[in-house]
Amino acid sequence: MPRTTLPDPRQSPRFAGIATFGRYPLISHVDEANTPVDWAIYGIPFDGGVTYRPGARFGPRAIRDASQYLKTHHIEHDITLTDVFSLADVGDAPVSPYSCSETHKLASDWALSLGEPATTKLLALGGDHSTALANMRATYQRRGAPKNGLALLHFDSHLDTVDSVWGERYGHASPFIRAIEEGIINPKRMISVGIKGPLNHRDDLVYAQKHGVTIITYDQWQAGGATRLQEFARSLGDQETYLSFDIDVVDPAFAPGTGTYSVGGFTSAGIFGALRSLAGVNIVGADVVEVLPDRDPAGITALLAAHVAFEIMCLDAARRK
Amino acid sequence: MPRTTLPDPRQSPRFAGIATFGRYPLISHVDEANTPVDWAIYGIPFDGGVTYRPGARFGPRAIRDASQYLKTHHIEHDITLTDVFSLADVGDAPVSPYSCSETHKLASDWALSLGEPATTKLLALGGDHSTALANMRATYQRRGAPKNGLALLHFDSHLDTVDSVWGERYGHASPFIRAIEEGIINPKRMISVGIKGPLNHRDDLVYAQKHGVTIITYDQWQAGGATRLQEFARSLGDQETYLSFDIDVVDPAFAPGTGTYSVGGFTSAGIFGALRSLAGVNIVGADVVEVLPDRDPAGITALLAAHVAFEIMCLDAARRK
Amino acid sequence: MPRTTLPDPRQSPRFAGIATFGRYPLISHVDEANTPVDWAIYGIPFDGGVTYRPGARFGPRAIRDASQYLKTHHIEHDITLTDVFSLADVGDAPVSPYSCSETHKLASDWALSLGEPATTKLLALGGDHSTALANMRATYQRRGAPKNGLALLHFDSHLDTVDSVWGERYGHASPFIRAIEEGIINPKRMISVGIKGPLNHRDDLVYAQKHGVTIITYDQWQAGGATRLQEFARSLGDQETYLSFDIDVVDPAFAPGTGTYSVGGFTSAGIFGALRSLAGVNIVGADVVEVLPDRDPAGITALLAAHVAFEIMCLDAARRK
Amino acid sequence: MPRTTLPDPRQSPRFAGIATFGRYPLISHVDEANTPVDWAIYGIPFDGGVTYRPGARFGPRAIRDASQYLKTHHIEHDITLTDVFSLADVGDAPVSPYSCSETHKLASDWALSLGEPATTKLLALGGDHSTALANMRATYQRRGAPKNGLALLHFDSHLDTVDSVWGERYGHASPFIRAIEEGIINPKRMISVGIKGPLNHRDDLVYAQKHGVTIITYDQWQAGGATRLQEFARSLGDQETYLSFDIDVVDPAFAPGTGTYSVGGFTSAGIFGALRSLAGVNIVGADVVEVLPDRDPAGITALLAAHVAFEIMCLDAARRK
Amino acid sequence: MPRTTLPDPRQSPRFAGIATFGRYPLISHVDEANTPVDWAIYGIPFDGGVTYRPGARFGPRAIRDASQYLKTHHIEHDITLTDVFSLADVGDAPVSPYSCSETHKLASDWALSLGEPATTKLLALGGDHSTALANMRATYQRRGAPKNGLALLHFDSHLDTVDSVWGERYGHASPFIRAIEEGIINPKRMISVGIKGPLNHRDDLVYAQKHGVTIITYDQWQAGGATRLQEFARSLGDQETYLSFDIDVVDPAFAPGTGTYSVGGFTSAGIFGALRSLAGVNIVGADVVEVLPDRDPAGITALLAAHVAFEIMCLDAARRK
Amino acid sequence: MPRTTLPDPRQSPRFAGIATFGRYPLISHVDEANTPVDWAIYGIPFDGGVTYRPGARFGPRAIRDASQYLKTHHIEHDITLTDVFSLADVGDAPVSPYSCSETHKLASDWALSLGEPATTKLLALGGDHSTALANMRATYQRRGAPKNGLALLHFDSHLDTVDSVWGERYGHASPFIRAIEEGIINPKRMISVGIKGPLNHRDDLVYAQKHGVTIITYDQWQAGGATRLQEFARSLGDQETYLSFDIDVVDPAFAPGTGTYSVGGFTSAGIFGALRSLAGVNIVGADVVEVLPDRDPAGITALLAAHVAFEIMCLDAARRK
Repeated sequence: MPRTTLPDPRQSPRFAGIATFGRYPLISHVDEANTPVDWAIYGIPFDGGVTYRPGARFGPRAIRDASQYLKTHHIEHDITLTDVFSLADVGDAPVSPYSCSETHKLASDWALSLGEPATTKLLALGGDHSTALANMRATYQRRGAPKNGLALLHFDSHLDTVDSVWGERYGHASPFIRAIEEGIINPKRMISVGIKGPLNHRDDLVYAQKHGVTIITYDQWQAGGATRLQEFARSLGDQETYLSFDIDVVDPAFAPGTGTYSVGGFTSAGIFGALRSLAGVNIVGADVVEVLPDRDPAGITALLAAHVAFEIMCLDAARRK
Repeated sequence: MPRTTLPDPRQSPRFAGIATFGRYPLISHVDEANTPVDWAIYGIPFDGGVTYRPGARFGPRAIRDASQYLKTHHIEHDITLTDVFSLADVGDAPVSPYSCSETHKLASDWALSLGEPATTKLLALGGDHSTALANMRATYQRRGAPKNGLALLHFDSHLDTVDSVWGERYGHASPFIRAIEEGIINPKRMISVGIKGPLNHRDDLVYAQKHGVTIITYDQWQAGGATRLQEFARSLGDQETYLSFDIDVVDPAFAPGTGTYSVGGFTSAGIFGALRSLAGVNIVGADVVEVLPDRDPAGITALLAAHVAFEIMCLDAARRK
Repeated sequence: MPRTTLPDPRQSPRFAGIATFGRYPLISHVDEANTPVDWAIYGIPFDGGVTYRPGARFGPRAIRDASQYLKTHHIEHDITLTDVFSLADVGDAPVSPYSCSETHKLASDWALSLGEPATTKLLALGGDHSTALANMRATYQRRGAPKNGLALLHFDSHLDTVDSVWGERYGHASPFIRAIEEGIINPKRMISVGIKGPLNHRDDLVYAQKHGVTIITYDQWQAGGATRLQEFARSLGDQETYLSFDIDVVDPAFAPGTGTYSVGGFTSAGIFGALRSLAGVNIVGADVVEVLPDRDPAGITALLAAHVAFEIMCLDAARRK
Repeated sequence: MPRTTLPDPRQSPRFAGIATFGRYPLISHVDEANTPVDWAIYGIPFDGGVTYRPGARFGPRAIRDASQYLKTHHIEHDITLTDVFSLADVGDAPVSPYSCSETHKLASDWALSLGEPATTKLLALGGDHSTALANMRATYQRRGAPKNGLALLHFDSHLDTVDSVWGERYGHASPFIRAIEEGIINPKRMISVGIKGPLNHRDDLVYAQKHGVTIITYDQWQAGGATRLQEFARSLGDQETYLSFDIDVVDPAFAPGTGTYSVGGFTSAGIFGALRSLAGVNIVGADVVEVLPDRDPAGITALLAAHVAFEIMCLDAARRK
Repeated sequence: MPRTTLPDPRQSPRFAGIATFGRYPLISHVDEANTPVDWAIYGIPFDGGVTYRPGARFGPRAIRDASQYLKTHHIEHDITLTDVFSLADVGDAPVSPYSCSETHKLASDWALSLGEPATTKLLALGGDHSTALANMRATYQRRGAPKNGLALLHFDSHLDTVDSVWGERYGHASPFIRAIEEGIINPKRMISVGIKGPLNHRDDLVYAQKHGVTIITYDQWQAGGATRLQEFARSLGDQETYLSFDIDVVDPAFAPGTGTYSVGGFTSAGIFGALRSLAGVNIVGADVVEVLPDRDPAGITALLAAHVAFEIMCLDAARRK
Repeated sequence: MPRTTLPDPRQSPRFAGIATFGRYPLISHVDEANTPVDWAIYGIPFDGGVTYRPGARFGPRAIRDASQYLKTHHIEHDITLTDVFSLADVGDAPVSPYSCSETHKLASDWALSLGEPATTKLLALGGDHSTALANMRATYQRRGAPKNGLALLHFDSHLDTVDSVWGERYGHASPFIRAIEEGIINPKRMISVGIKGPLNHRDDLVYAQKHGVTIITYDQWQAGGATRLQEFARSLGDQETYLSFDIDVVDPAFAPGTGTYSVGGFTSAGIFGALRSLAGVNIVGADVVEVLPDRDPAGITALLAAHVAFEIMCLDAARRK
């Protein structure tokens, strides 16, 4: 018997009905037997932290729409996600559209109370990358604020450890510097995969070096990065690990719908390979961010984002198995 | 105190949350004090009856998304719709994507049971125009199957009284011929406004003439049609009246997102003028159909459709006032 | 019995088959009984004469595609065009993509020989407005090169009587100055309707004044221009008249797919009204030009162009009637 | 001899060169004879004040690109703008992307110093409507802070006199309430033309009533509003007047590229008629705002905005004449 | 001397003329010397069998348009296709838009009679994947209904062996289960390459296992699948083989214009490599399906589809050589 | 201290200001200390030489817009380009839109005089590939017309050595045959990388063979082409080398905005790898051509082009280092 019950797509078509993520039930509709849920999926419709093209506030809605075509059985892991987990869409976090720090507080406080902290893991759909901070904070608190912080698997074109831009310390270029300062993330157990494109300054690399963050640029990825990532993942053992996925880590050909894209990166198949290689890691929270639907007429970015979210939850399911 | 409670847009932004029509509550979330609802809005995500470009199955979802920016106070009628009515989104009707007649049965049966027939009126979001038949049937039954049928206000580029196309008698060119045959619509109290563009045959006009349907082409509209429509409306008195609105009645400049568009028609402002002139008519059910979002990057068609639905319900509110 | 036989749209759908204009037969498929044809429709896929955005070379193909949804019975004139006329698509004229003057010669020579000059009228689909010169030349020759030239009904945002641009005397800003010089068009019987937008120079108006061309700007149109046009048309009597239609005469909202658009003009319905008011004029040739499909995702410009071509031929049919 | 020298479009094509507004010179390239300039055009690339769809930060650049096709001679006013005025593009104001109030200060201070206050008028290109406050402030100071404030001609779908949204008092719903509070605008000499669509609250109309702001909704416009506007304009006499133009005042068919569009409004031709009727008014500053290019593939919104800016400056030129 | 004569692109440009596939002649224009043709290309404009996004009915027309830029000499095979083969576009098959099974009958019967069965091979352009059944049936009959059926090379994201969806046994999820049941395809000689994305049920894999269908998922492809495919192909020897190509086998980045896309697959170059590795296989019929142009503004999907069709015919030419 | 001073993106956002390439100064704004500049970047807005889809005349403007997001530090080369070089945007070359040969003369003459020939290298942004001839001519003259000509690194889908098309010897299919005839390029030191797609004639390969041009098709690239390219590059030693980059060398998934695209080629990451492998080559001039923005809603083609230009200049910087 499935833990999550969806409308049968061979009865109620995927283009019908109110759009929840993956057609999963709203949390208020989950029956007791499947409560608390294993993963609570929610949106953070906020783009007040961007430095270039805005519009990611419409990301959660776009991902929900695209996710109607998300099926449930993962061939490569041989897992039917909805058999393993009770899953629910809990709607969108409250936001304060004109303030990064206020939004992070609102969203983080709200997320703290979702489901059952001991059981329920949080998957946030962005929104810009600054929203990751809210979900990392909530995840960290729910795991009991572990002394050494969480490990971090970070997929991105950008380092996102800039101290501040235009006077804002909580924008989308800064989630990880803040998370490290707050003790949420342990920089020595943080890896940034897929970094690409020119930087504003050579110095932008210094923070990572100084704090022990591991970086695999996409250029390095092509020369053996997969092995390095797997070694890193293996070294984590049971360490509680957060996964933050910025959709711009893939090449704009595969994700034209984002705000600060950088050419020359992962293919979709390549990123799936990278994610699938992480089986065994102890994922305790995650986000998929920076989906900006406006200039992506086919909606392939949001579709990819939905599948990335699915891949992440399947990692957790594979581990449980 | 409002009859319908929405999220306050100055707290929870319009780009946040699961998208229901107009941000109205799901029917399962309406409190007892406001039950039964006055209008039940639902989608019929079906385009199996089209004769040219398909895709209107995505219409209900597109209208819900666009309707997030639908406000509640109608300046010209001086009515706050949510103060007057209890409103709810009841989701989408069941459909059988490969069969017009089967879909009409499924949707009509399902709609029959929504809310409280004596009180609750039905507003269907298409889907292709064939889905109107389902909503007309349900409306007719809920009103006690009045012997002389319902009056019909029909806005459209097309007559939609073709007997059959490619052997299908229930496609989107035929809803009204079927409704008349079934006694649901009284052709003598039916008016088709905005007819435009060339026809397949001169004979396509014969059915209307023979059965007493009134036609105002857009050419005629420009030469005094507004007066004729108002006279027709006044002549209806208290007669129970259904309103069927095909979005292609406006010019493609205003509604590029539809499947069988015809150039040279109403402006948006013009159609609002026409609808507002109907204050006093006893609307007992309605539909807004033929929204096909794929080639309308700005989404102005779905936005217009949402506002047309709002105008229709405001007509009912104005009458009650 | 129809003069032109089309596939029955209720058997062979409008989205099926090789796309010819209006689904009319290729000229090689017209049977003897209907030969010579009354109107030969052909494309001139050339945009080597433009001064701003190119791409109208794809206009004929776009119009053919859009014209699949062109029906045959004109309600307002009460004419079934295919009953009155034998019509054929004769394909595209030869062009020399790098040379205006060479293209005009090639296309004009080719068009001279289409159908039967005494009977068959030519309707050219552009291509940029410079291609009109080719069709005007061919039409003029086929009518026996009348001493006083042809009258001209010209719908456009622009005057198109510039002497030369960047050294080119045959570009899309110049077709009428050349046609007048060549004696094809009689400037005293030429009217330009719908002129709008700022000019490069005040002097651009001088040519018209000096040669007796009548101008109705769109501003003037709104203040009684319809009457002036009708008077002009009536004054033509039986005069052989050419009609040249630049799609940019309508507002970009109605025709976003063009190359040098100018804001603030005709609606589609407005232009149909203008065309329909010309019943009685002796149209002997016509063109519809400047359709550029690339940035018009819904294809409404090409659809409008197809209907304008239909309206023009219906004028001729109405006269015959 | 022209006051403003542009590249000759018949030598250097309109698609060539660095894009400045209207191809006007950068202010640093204006020769002494034409200094100070009469109108300084600048952008305020800021959308941090929006309540729905962001992206207007790209408005100034989109308008500059579209304005390459802006010609110089206004037929209806019979004015060659560049003969009358020395015009320059002064680039973009400094902005603080995360703060409305900070941006308004930065932009206003910067604008204060442009050209020669006594001579040079400011035309700002938005950006969201909140940026109008910056330009109104600078204009007001440059005119010597007149005791009774400036008169205001306001074209918009929205009233923009909301006190605050999400705690922000300087967002795009509030420029005029702030300007009135600051004594910049005299509400008794303020008119809002083209208001349309439903409101959030009936009370949103109260502010205008209480402070004496004149409102002409688009519904009222259609029933004689032109006359009322002209009377209002005439009543202003020589009063120093600011003109604020929100592109969403036109229907989305004509301006799909904006952030909070509202269906059922002005056509482009209609709005040109309204603007041209204002000849005689003493315009001392202006803005054109809320151009958001992302979902407008043909760029017709930015093109319209450029022409509106041109119409406004022509009003000033017409008065001088 | 070429077997197929095309317009010379250096005389008649590729953007000119009525669009036939690859600019090949209509079959009625092929001269006797080149009759019967070797390959008859035709469209099946039908999408009544889809389970998600419709619109593939416009696929044949889109492919024809895109194929205007298809050249004739294959560098890697060193073959000029038009020198080897007589090729013709035979237009579109008759369809019954509301019925899968009826369409398959109509199209199959019509295709049976094309060209000369013993010589002429059929290449069908979809349309949804259900249309493949029609072409497989016709091919099978034309080859004399071989007792063991045809071998099948199947490129796709999906297995397409679902028994029925929404009560329809002939939809686009089912062509191969039906073809196997009808004895047309030998499942033991069937290979499905490129399967990717999650499944509705783990059980969806059972059919293939039970009947001996070989599957290479895209994940497996990346780990040596090319070799497996080549071995499979070699094992076929002279076996009459059908090739069915669903465009969604490539990643949506390369084919955004399709209806049920699945992220993470082949690149265009990758799929060309796979196809070219099949030289030697005895292809007796083929299809390219699921092109849906509406949301692919650059038309790259249809262009790819045209080239895939070309690659397939080149395989046959390479074998003949 | 940087050689090139840009607006600080953490003060003046990348979406603000007049768009120059990479936000580099206009040449008139470069201070003396940094004069002459090392690289002069300019546009050639001309597409009069195309054989299929026009529109590349808007390429320079699109690249400038996209290049606002071009940063300055190249991670892989560890070079901050603006520290090494003085860079300037010098605007667009004069063009004669109706004539290839005239444009080449105008642009070449103009480019001859830019900066200081001995120091300043030229990077041209197309425009169609015919414009490369202008930049090659100017570069060659500025280098003192070396007797054996320049070496050429040519990235393209097409060979571009066709003698003439439609009577035009200077179109975009012919820049290299002309450059070789003029002695500018030494065919024995010319390599064409990434050739793909079918050819018009097998004979199109003969020119290269006869003159000693090296070709690496994309098929060959995948089988060891990287090594061959590196060997070729190494063999050039200090030879003065021109680099011509046609954006259609990458697959249309990565560059949908071009005019004659050919499916099945380089990824963005692949082409960056190829370019980076050229470190050491003595680049003395370059172009990036065939960007056509109209059908690329996300603008990824222009963004890629800007980054390719950056990569090329970084090669020069790496060599200097």
